[in-house]
Amino acid sequence: MRLLREKIENEGIVLSDGVLKVDSFLNHQIDPVLMKEIGFEFARRFKAEGITKIVTIESSGISPAVMAGLEMGVKVVFARKRKSLTLTDQLLVSSVYSFTKQEENNIAVSSQFLSKDDRVLIIDDFLANGEAAKGLIDIVNQSGAAVMGIGIVIEKSFQKGAKEIMDLGYRVESLAKIASLKEGQVSFVEQLEEVTI
Amino acid sequence: MRLLREKIENEGIVLSDGVLKVDSFLNHQIDPVLMKEIGFEFARRFKAEGITKIVTIESSGISPAVMAGLEMGVKVVFARKRKSLTLTDQLLVSSVYSFTKQEENNIAVSSQFLSKDDRVLIIDDFLANGEAAKGLIDIVNQSGAAVMGIGIVIEKSFQKGAKEIMDLGYRVESLAKIASLKEGQVSFVEQLEEVTI
Repeated sequence: MRLLREKIENEGIVLSDGVLKVDSFLNHQIDPVLMKEIGFEFARRFKAEGITKIVTIESSGISPAVMAGLEMGVKVVFARKRKSLTLTDQLLVSSVYSFTKQEENNIAVSSQFLSKDDRVLIIDDFLANGEAAKGLIDIVNQSGAAVMGIGIVIEKSFQKGAKEIMDLGYRVESLAKIASLKEGQVSFVEQLEEVTI
Repeated sequence: MRLLREKIENEGIVLSDGVLKVDSFLNHQIDPVLMKEIGFEFARRFKAEGITKIVTIESSGISPAVMAGLEMGVKVVFARKRKSLTLTDQLLVSSVYSFTKQEENNIAVSSQFLSKDDRVLIIDDFLANGEAAKGLIDIVNQSGAAVMGIGIVIEKSFQKGAKEIMDLGYRVESLAKIASLKEGQVSFVEQLEEVTI
């Protein structure tokens, strides 16, 4: 997705060999026009899957997921990382380790928002070691619904998550794939792959 | 806003005299079509204010804020409640007590995303005691930007927040105003006020 790649090239900040900061359009400040384009692209890629629900995780997954949900005509559920007084239903829970926050979280979704007939698209902002995505897959599987695919805004392809999840048999569609962050430079996988999109 | 009121009437669950649960379309599951309508309505109400940026707070404020940002052609910044490894800039910080989560949080926004020339619309999902809104106002004021108004999806008008913030001289626009949650019933302020919208 050319617009996303340009944003990463122009505004992404490489904090270390493993950490890319995109706070100006995705993780803190949000560019709504870019989010709309991202939602449109997820909808295009998963059009044939008969998606009935999108599952994401707070907070940075919400914007791309809601834009995809608008385009696809389905509702979005965001997994919660923290307990809320209003989260009183029977919960589907999974444990997720966050490398950027350096802590283990239980993530939770109310069981009432996922049924065994649902065909679920999981969306998240980043895919690195795959912890969050695997937690969301676990939750969807607990509900009996089917995981039809995982849509990722930025995949750090040099980390293990994407390969591990594909090896489990899931379809992963990442709109930007980063091969390396070494020497402060962002290098993309298959630089020419999406030039025509 | 009739669509929002109908959603609250049909899907809202009164947990107590003070707590309304709207997990099916705003706080856990999100209805993207409703969010788009909400964003459109905020844009309509604040059209004359020359808004240059929207500020909200994770997580439930993000969807309505991004839809409003899309409609208004401005970027959105969401205040963070938790530290992140990538949040390394100079921060504007304020302290907020959450009644639904029963804890005190520092909320933070990177100073680089607010300038003194910004005309800011603050958006949040609920306004009850006004803690979050006052924290966001504090952060915008620290930046030197101007708070042009506060857009709220659901105002609990029987709590003190809306009055206190209006008494400070700020414009508050709430798309649904709840007069009472007593006896398990949602009663709206001025039931007929928005019938023509």
